[in-house]
Amino acid sequence: MSELTEPLKQPAGRRPRVVIVGSGFGGLHAAIGLAKLPVDVTIVDRRNHHTFQPLLYQVALAVLSPANIAQPIRSILRKQPNTEVLMDDVVGIDQTAHLVILGSGAQLEYDYLVLATGATHSYFGKDEWAPLAPGLKTIEDALEIRRRVLLAFELAERQMQEHGWHPPLDFVVIGGGPTGVELAGAISDIAQLYMRRDFRHIDPATSRVLLLDAGPRLLAAYPEDLSAKAHEELARLGVEVHVTSPVTGIGPGWVEFNGQRINAAVTLWAAGVQASPLGKLLGAPVDHRGCVLVDHHLNPAAMPEVFVLGDLAHFEQDGRQVPGVAQPAMQMGDHVGRIVSADLAGRSRPAFRYFDKGDMATIGRMAAIAKVEWPFKAHWSGFLAWATWLTVHIFFLIGFRNRLAVFAAWIWTYFTFTHGARLITGDQRLPGWHEQVAAGPAEEQTPASSC
Amino acid sequence: MSELTEPLKQPAGRRPRVVIVGSGFGGLHAAIGLAKLPVDVTIVDRRNHHTFQPLLYQVALAVLSPANIAQPIRSILRKQPNTEVLMDDVVGIDQTAHLVILGSGAQLEYDYLVLATGATHSYFGKDEWAPLAPGLKTIEDALEIRRRVLLAFELAERQMQEHGWHPPLDFVVIGGGPTGVELAGAISDIAQLYMRRDFRHIDPATSRVLLLDAGPRLLAAYPEDLSAKAHEELARLGVEVHVTSPVTGIGPGWVEFNGQRINAAVTLWAAGVQASPLGKLLGAPVDHRGCVLVDHHLNPAAMPEVFVLGDLAHFEQDGRQVPGVAQPAMQMGDHVGRIVSADLAGRSRPAFRYFDKGDMATIGRMAAIAKVEWPFKAHWSGFLAWATWLTVHIFFLIGFRNRLAVFAAWIWTYFTFTHGARLITGDQRLPGWHEQVAAGPAEEQTPASSC
Repeated sequence: MSELTEPLKQPAGRRPRVVIVGSGFGGLHAAIGLAKLPVDVTIVDRRNHHTFQPLLYQVALAVLSPANIAQPIRSILRKQPNTEVLMDDVVGIDQTAHLVILGSGAQLEYDYLVLATGATHSYFGKDEWAPLAPGLKTIEDALEIRRRVLLAFELAERQMQEHGWHPPLDFVVIGGGPTGVELAGAISDIAQLYMRRDFRHIDPATSRVLLLDAGPRLLAAYPEDLSAKAHEELARLGVEVHVTSPVTGIGPGWVEFNGQRINAAVTLWAAGVQASPLGKLLGAPVDHRGCVLVDHHLNPAAMPEVFVLGDLAHFEQDGRQVPGVAQPAMQMGDHVGRIVSADLAGRSRPAFRYFDKGDMATIGRMAAIAKVEWPFKAHWSGFLAWATWLTVHIFFLIGFRNRLAVFAAWIWTYFTFTHGARLITGDQRLPGWHEQVAAGPAEEQTPASSC
Repeated sequence: MSELTEPLKQPAGRRPRVVIVGSGFGGLHAAIGLAKLPVDVTIVDRRNHHTFQPLLYQVALAVLSPANIAQPIRSILRKQPNTEVLMDDVVGIDQTAHLVILGSGAQLEYDYLVLATGATHSYFGKDEWAPLAPGLKTIEDALEIRRRVLLAFELAERQMQEHGWHPPLDFVVIGGGPTGVELAGAISDIAQLYMRRDFRHIDPATSRVLLLDAGPRLLAAYPEDLSAKAHEELARLGVEVHVTSPVTGIGPGWVEFNGQRINAAVTLWAAGVQASPLGKLLGAPVDHRGCVLVDHHLNPAAMPEVFVLGDLAHFEQDGRQVPGVAQPAMQMGDHVGRIVSADLAGRSRPAFRYFDKGDMATIGRMAAIAKVEWPFKAHWSGFLAWATWLTVHIFFLIGFRNRLAVFAAWIWTYFTFTHGARLITGDQRLPGWHEQVAAGPAEEQTPASSC
């Protein structure tokens, strides 16, 4: 054991101060894990709400409202007297003076610092792609994707009614991880099932959904049989999956891959993530995505008072990096409480070990894939996996009211084939649409049966 | 009877085309009233959704989500085969050629034109006040008000925590009509009841709500006894009501009236409305607010093929202008169907008469005032009026799902004292806050008991 297993020396004459930056799964669980300890906790986030990211794609596709999957951090932690919430940006960390520097200019002293600011999109250096192909990390991102997808149908209807043709309703999702798979399946659902009865001129079912991935198979983090199942289920929904297809260009209204340029009414980005810039601010070693390398106490090298959690952390176990999903983040958050508790008691620090209960992703209306690791091992797909997914996600949603509301929205959507939150807010422009209209109809772009 | 009672000559060899601009209460009811007639209807709106405006203030104060009170126009009219929906702006009307010119450049031919584009805020020529004091007409407006009100509490908490004082949490609502009264009551509720348990440093209950009106009493369109009741109820909630107090200046962080300048963390505008500019495009006589003067067939002078409805119309009955609220708009919309039906049958046109069933406004958590006109006449206030208000508003919401969701949200809020939709989206800046902070604490701005 290294010397870091030794408990940290505690400040004399006052309670230790813990500053947590970020209120995702990691930050929130760290706060909750510290609730009963004699420490003073401040949790800082630039947003006032915790977002249940696994259901963000359902906000993007108009099944749920933002308030169904987000909860004010203050409300969640209301009954925790040792914790306060501050809505602010973190712009710097002074490790010598043990200070977190905030966007408002103020400074927070800490004895322990917990960084859990997660990850954001990475366009692999092509930042000019960002406005053309939004990603899905925040409520605002979800509303922007919703706006674009719904607007594409409206603009196509208008174009068809006025000019007798419309640019093809092709939706291109880049990236075949869980988010890309979920987005592609959900867009296919919306076009094939939910929008059909609402338009007079276009047939939403003629729209295409393409899912592109640079690697050799979808859901690379899952076992091969589940990747194959997901591929199969997506094909059944009409999604055109292209693997080994790195995207080489994105422009207004088009995407380039494998040497071809295809039309894209809406392009969505689910391909790359990079760690929040806060990791680099820390000055500790990071991996190629900016994730901070942490040891089995979740500390960066030689920083026993700093914990890095969740998507921001690079933690290896059994020779593999623990994935950037909700479960490890929660468990890491919980573990911070255990370590601080050990420090306070003068005990040696317990090592963190990720306990993988399994993982899953939905593929449209009634299918999912699940890799179950606990309480038994199994690979599931189809309806059973989907039912499991529903149950688990309802259970982990924060707030009884949200659980009820999401359950009601799902029941409603499932039985009535209507999405309840189909509102377009914001402006009426869709990047690339004007260019496609100006280019005029191509022969294959105006199916004769589209009326 | 004037010659306009004569039915309009119908086009030969095809069904008459009706173009409806606007999908508020007037436009939507016009479309529904034409559902069974042998006409082709196109309803044009720049948004994809109908908004239930009477509950917008509850979206602004985080009780409801946008999707609870808005419904896609296409979904509402899905089962009406003679009607199509177009999401577009109207930029011109060519009355000679009977064409509506759209923002996309396209044109729609009409035999009948129904204009129901409503009203927007009027700052009485002081358009520079608009960014400082937003009004409440759209979902976007409601989210902006929500953002500002919630952000003020967050920024005060941050300022208090960091510097030991904060600018006073004074909310100024300008305009004492139903919207102003509802906003003031709801902000008072949120500060006094719902936010109390969530903050560690500030006491939200020390915030002030001021309601300013230029006229001699609140709710000028209501009988005097109900105005007095509303005033009383607001005072009970702690709202400071100032009548005969025209606002003479609005700046970042302050409002001027009666020769004094007061602090304002958030300023909201509920004072003036003006008709949508489409009324003027028509070239018909308008009143001082831009509302089109219409006769008892809802036609502007000498335009028997044009109907103007709702807030965009100036319709007088018994020597009084019919108010710009939901009921007259709906009834006018219904009446368009009757007139077109008469035209098609070669019958003379029926005259419109507004049937006033009464009107009401809520004042915070458990009080309202109601002027009942039908089925009996009464003036109600307090709990009974509030219960009536609840029932009527649930009943008139479009969509069974929305009725359930709103009912559930109200029950929840009522019994748990928590608002479900307290999300701040968008940026973290609050106009005027920086100026107030820079000015530093005034003696009376930092109540010693605020911790």
